[in-house]
Amino acid sequence: MTTIPCPTAVALLSGGLDSTVLLHHARQSLVSGRVLTLSYNYGQRHTRELDCARWQAERVGAVEHRVIDLSFLGELLRGGSALIAGGHDVPNLTDLAPEQLTQPPTYVPNRNMMLLSMAAAYAEASGVRDVFYGAQAMDQYGYWDCTVEFVERINRVLSLNRNDPITIHAPFVTMKKTEVVKLGLSLGVDFSHTWSCYRGESKACGTCPTCVERLTAFREAGIPDPVPYA
Amino acid sequence: MTTIPCPTAVALLSGGLDSTVLLHHARQSLVSGRVLTLSYNYGQRHTRELDCARWQAERVGAVEHRVIDLSFLGELLRGGSALIAGGHDVPNLTDLAPEQLTQPPTYVPNRNMMLLSMAAAYAEASGVRDVFYGAQAMDQYGYWDCTVEFVERINRVLSLNRNDPITIHAPFVTMKKTEVVKLGLSLGVDFSHTWSCYRGESKACGTCPTCVERLTAFREAGIPDPVPYA
Repeated sequence: MTTIPCPTAVALLSGGLDSTVLLHHARQSLVSGRVLTLSYNYGQRHTRELDCARWQAERVGAVEHRVIDLSFLGELLRGGSALIAGGHDVPNLTDLAPEQLTQPPTYVPNRNMMLLSMAAAYAEASGVRDVFYGAQAMDQYGYWDCTVEFVERINRVLSLNRNDPITIHAPFVTMKKTEVVKLGLSLGVDFSHTWSCYRGESKACGTCPTCVERLTAFREAGIPDPVPYA
Repeated sequence: MTTIPCPTAVALLSGGLDSTVLLHHARQSLVSGRVLTLSYNYGQRHTRELDCARWQAERVGAVEHRVIDLSFLGELLRGGSALIAGGHDVPNLTDLAPEQLTQPPTYVPNRNMMLLSMAAAYAEASGVRDVFYGAQAMDQYGYWDCTVEFVERINRVLSLNRNDPITIHAPFVTMKKTEVVKLGLSLGVDFSHTWSCYRGESKACGTCPTCVERLTAFREAGIPDPVPYA
């Protein structure tokens, strides 16, 4: 993994596993100064992820934690995703047909360009040139906006800025989730304050696509997942 | 100007001169089916533009007109633009130093990537592949996100989508405002229901950068601007 030293940075923080480990990694190794964290409420089925994001932002001493309210997306996108309240039901991974995996029901149309464009605007207005984005390699199967090419092409757009251009860094984009868990362990991340499950219940379901990936990653890393499962 | 025939489209509509003429051009010449119009409230100093947008959307029989509330941008961007309530004062064009012209105080950080990413998401969720965007050549002096390269690079990002990719069309990006006015005239556009002035007064100021450009374009086109000036 390449080192990306920068004086100060914006970290996109969903409260899930990947963005949380990236936040700690950035704070401990990559950013010499302050970190600003940015979360989004886009009409997720629950706010548990957002609660974890706030907890982790405090944990690393973020100088500012912002939550942008994008709850209008549910209506704008006509409920067109299982991740948005009012959309499809969240599927079990085992119920998905192979051809659904390249763009699963949990895909949100053009989500990451929207999120990164706002993060870049926030960074620019804050005098910050670097944005950390927790996309990791296992998301690439189903999400074109979690790929290496996507990040490269977004940066090609941003490079046109006549002020100091913003750069999006996605150091996990070539790493498997198991490696992210191991890195988090070495950094002392408290995984009990992360949330990945797509369903809005009090315990993680253990069967939706992201739960299956998360459980596999912890098993491969050789440690138990501290989050409660149904 | 290249013809871009498409069955149906989303048109970004600010209520200003360029996006209004593009809407009429698209409806009369480019789109064989329905048009969906999309406007943004991003904390502009006044709603006059948005009133014009709604009027023009009805005029062309848009099947849907949406206004996304992005009023959080004022706070997110720390008031960092003269176009946002609470930001800098709107300057007169004659008060701007030459070096300010490449990124003037009316620049909104990364605005157009934010707006286009939401328009593309809306189009995708609506089953529409084409988005019309009214950037025109005279904006390129001060806005990197109104350039040919910007539109090309945004389309390079969007082309990665594994569904039918969305394409942003900016047919005025190589045209001067005078040509846009002339085209609007030939299409019967009612310019009294367009609004360009950056200041939030009941009459257009006639001295801010966009008023100066607009007045010049009408003079060069040889017709009076029907909008009231102070």
